[in-house]
Amino acid sequence: MKRFQQIFFFFLLAFLAGKGLAQNGPRPASARYTKVPVGYLMVLRQGDDVFAQLESFAKSEKIPSANFTGMGFVNAKFGYFNQKTKQYDPKEFQDVELSSMQGSIAWQDQKPSLHVHGVVTDKRFQAYGGHMLAATVGTGSVEILITVHDKPLQRMMEQPLGANVLNLGSN
Amino acid sequence: MKRFQQIFFFFLLAFLAGKGLAQNGPRPASARYTKVPVGYLMVLRQGDDVFAQLESFAKSEKIPSANFTGMGFVNAKFGYFNQKTKQYDPKEFQDVELSSMQGSIAWQDQKPSLHVHGVVTDKRFQAYGGHMLAATVGTGSVEILITVHDKPLQRMMEQPLGANVLNLGSN
Amino acid sequence: MKRFQQIFFFFLLAFLAGKGLAQNGPRPASARYTKVPVGYLMVLRQGDDVFAQLESFAKSEKIPSANFTGMGFVNAKFGYFNQKTKQYDPKEFQDVELSSMQGSIAWQDQKPSLHVHGVVTDKRFQAYGGHMLAATVGTGSVEILITVHDKPLQRMMEQPLGANVLNLGSN
Repeated sequence: MKRFQQIFFFFLLAFLAGKGLAQNGPRPASARYTKVPVGYLMVLRQGDDVFAQLESFAKSEKIPSANFTGMGFVNAKFGYFNQKTKQYDPKEFQDVELSSMQGSIAWQDQKPSLHVHGVVTDKRFQAYGGHMLAATVGTGSVEILITVHDKPLQRMMEQPLGANVLNLGSN
Repeated sequence: MKRFQQIFFFFLLAFLAGKGLAQNGPRPASARYTKVPVGYLMVLRQGDDVFAQLESFAKSEKIPSANFTGMGFVNAKFGYFNQKTKQYDPKEFQDVELSSMQGSIAWQDQKPSLHVHGVVTDKRFQAYGGHMLAATVGTGSVEILITVHDKPLQRMMEQPLGANVLNLGSN
Repeated sequence: MKRFQQIFFFFLLAFLAGKGLAQNGPRPASARYTKVPVGYLMVLRQGDDVFAQLESFAKSEKIPSANFTGMGFVNAKFGYFNQKTKQYDPKEFQDVELSSMQGSIAWQDQKPSLHVHGVVTDKRFQAYGGHMLAATVGTGSVEILITVHDKPLQRMMEQPLGANVLNLGSN
């Protein structure tokens, strides 16, 4: 009987220690989003990389494809597609409200492929935006509603356009 | 028999008068939104207070939490969060198109808590925006699609940020 | 036996020719959108008329009513409603990112009725926008998520406003 008690207390202590670690340790990745009927609601905090979090989410939850809308406070990098160089001419905006963000999640070469457009506004309320290349959460948060689809979708480079396009198949 | 006729005509007149009053009286609050599969579609008209209508809706329909998108014609007040004063520096825009609005509904101290970002454009099509503090429908309407979630969500003041953040729990 | 071979080869050639035609011919309209749980996902390509495609979709799929969000690369025409003339004063923007688009589909006089607001950004990332009158896909694509509702909705001219308003009925 004493051995059973020892075993029981050992497991009880191990269980409590585990709980303590979980509460004091870094916030688990799963707490950044929660399931809702149309998909997932994501809340990112200061310093979070918006694109990395969305890609990590897509892999973890095996998202076939999705669309999302979002808003918050960010440091963001936009790019305007240069038809001659087929590259994005970039520009960064610091400490701006993310007044609008719309994007889609698909797959390309077995990796999540994001397409994100946004509008940011500065302290004078002036608006800027376009094709987003990167965004990090600033002094605030970013809320994203992800509407998940059931169809696995691929993004493919289309020529002579020289740009990635979401492929719906030939239906 | 005559008394029955009198009673019948009295009720007929009362019924018709009631219908007339209903048609000429103020539009009932319920006509401002209708149920759709993902949640509710709301249409606001000239003079309606966008924030008050959304809060009243959240209470009436006992919305656990929701996200919404919207557009229309408004008089709007934006605020840029001042990190020093922890207050919003405000600016108002009159007679502007609400070109984009994204927001969320949660709860705080038993009251609906809105977080709304928007982009407005003036008659020269110039865009302004950010964190919306208030909006009233201008000479036109405002259409809002509200995607309702099943999880009750709270907004909580986070320190040292000094800002309210949507709390998804520890999952 | 020889006749069977001839017939077989005839059909094989006809089949291959058909496939070749299908691949080289114009992309079928159905490939522009695909069904998803909340409605439809639409991808438009260079030269596509955004409004005509949405109207054609609404008729083909007998959409009772819907809301949509979108983004991409466009040539767009906006209009600011002039309260005196009750007309839209227009302005066009070429080769701009469609950084945000929000709209609704309803019906008026048995025809699909669109209400679309958008924000576009130029190569300097400056934002413009408002009520969209027309848009054609530029050197890129346009992705649109259409959330379909089950209620047939009408848009009606309201006076003295002089503008079309989405009618939810008297509930």
